[in-house]
Amino acid sequence: MTKNTKVNAAILIIGNEILSGRTKDTNTSTIALWLNSIGVIVQEVRVIPDIEETIVGTVNELRKLNDYVFTTGGIGPTHDDITAQSISKAFNLSYEIHKKAFKILEAYYKPGEFNEGRQKMIWMPKNANLILNPTSGAPGFNVENVFCLPGVPSILKSMLGGLKNKIVGGDPILSHTISLRTVESEIAKSLTAVQEKNKGTEIGSYPFFQAGKLGVSIVIRSEKQSKIDECRNQILNFIKKMEIEVVDR
Amino acid sequence: MTKNTKVNAAILIIGNEILSGRTKDTNTSTIALWLNSIGVIVQEVRVIPDIEETIVGTVNELRKLNDYVFTTGGIGPTHDDITAQSISKAFNLSYEIHKKAFKILEAYYKPGEFNEGRQKMIWMPKNANLILNPTSGAPGFNVENVFCLPGVPSILKSMLGGLKNKIVGGDPILSHTISLRTVESEIAKSLTAVQEKNKGTEIGSYPFFQAGKLGVSIVIRSEKQSKIDECRNQILNFIKKMEIEVVDR
Repeated sequence: MTKNTKVNAAILIIGNEILSGRTKDTNTSTIALWLNSIGVIVQEVRVIPDIEETIVGTVNELRKLNDYVFTTGGIGPTHDDITAQSISKAFNLSYEIHKKAFKILEAYYKPGEFNEGRQKMIWMPKNANLILNPTSGAPGFNVENVFCLPGVPSILKSMLGGLKNKIVGGDPILSHTISLRTVESEIAKSLTAVQEKNKGTEIGSYPFFQAGKLGVSIVIRSEKQSKIDECRNQILNFIKKMEIEVVDR
Repeated sequence: MTKNTKVNAAILIIGNEILSGRTKDTNTSTIALWLNSIGVIVQEVRVIPDIEETIVGTVNELRKLNDYVFTTGGIGPTHDDITAQSISKAFNLSYEIHKKAFKILEAYYKPGEFNEGRQKMIWMPKNANLILNPTSGAPGFNVENVFCLPGVPSILKSMLGGLKNKIVGGDPILSHTISLRTVESEIAKSLTAVQEKNKGTEIGSYPFFQAGKLGVSIVIRSEKQSKIDECRNQILNFIKKMEIEVVDR
């Protein structure tokens, strides 16, 4: 892949705790912001349960549709952690002890602490590439374009830096936000006109409540700063005419 | 659908702002907790961009696989709000002015305020059923088993109550959480044994950090209180033997 191509990714959140509503997913935002900064666009996110058949099927669907797939969750030591065995099945690889992961965890734990539960975390698809974990030892891994990360947000975050050289993105996706003291319906017509004049540029409109007052954030996104600037000027132009207040946010 | 049947739903989050990482989705959690309380299990969540073809395709896939589909986002007044027109296409219905929605919004706004932008929000699939909005007037709607809600979390939340009579769930999904001062690898083996003895009951294990200390929450989920109690007793039993501290969370 060369620069300037659109590079796409899907995020696959594996975990009953998100589907039950008990836990709110924050990993999507962490991964997406990081991917955008290295020129990868997230096309789709799916949240699925800890069911092997579902994981295998979804991974096989997404890895063909996207340049990269990032999974989160299911690589810990308990019975409901079945991502590594599912990825092995998806790629038709044997699920076995990863020697390098074994060495890492053997060195990480104190003598006698590398128990049966922890040893589950060194079972991976054959020849998986490790993703180092500077927080808690147990590595993630990737097979081809599928990158498996843990579900705990702080640990996941600490592992992204180590991934940078493995992901080849396009131009970084830039964005500019204009926040206004108005409501969407007041600016809808003018904003539509700007979008129609700038079809290749993504313009989003998002209402917000701040300090008890309504507002709208307009977000312009593109790989080209010049396109963002053009849209911004056109928007600031109609805002000025309409005497709408720009606010900090 | 009668009681005691498993009733499934999918949640479809429509919005570039989630895929870009700018906004963290909280609507999944709100909808899932509410659905669980009325006996509906969320099988899958998808987040997709504001692209008509993608919305149409995904809605048509999910509505056949699930008893209910809940979409969030894209029903406001701006150019990037294309859910209603996409749902019309998905069901092959004309996209037209909804007379009842017109009356509601005409009464809601002061004279002269029901402008062009706002009038976009009364365009819906032909004969859609309205979902009333006690917060900001503009209703959501459903066509068959697809329920379309707004993306703004506080507005969405206020509309769920009005949906209750439209959704027929099974038995409510009950859950019990036991939080422990331990790490997952210490309890993995014993917890696996409990899961194997109680195959129909979902047992999840989730690490947490609280006040700088590590812990694990074990979550037991079932429609039957008796099954939850059985698992809980077996878990408390091994915890006691292992002298692991139970903590409040």
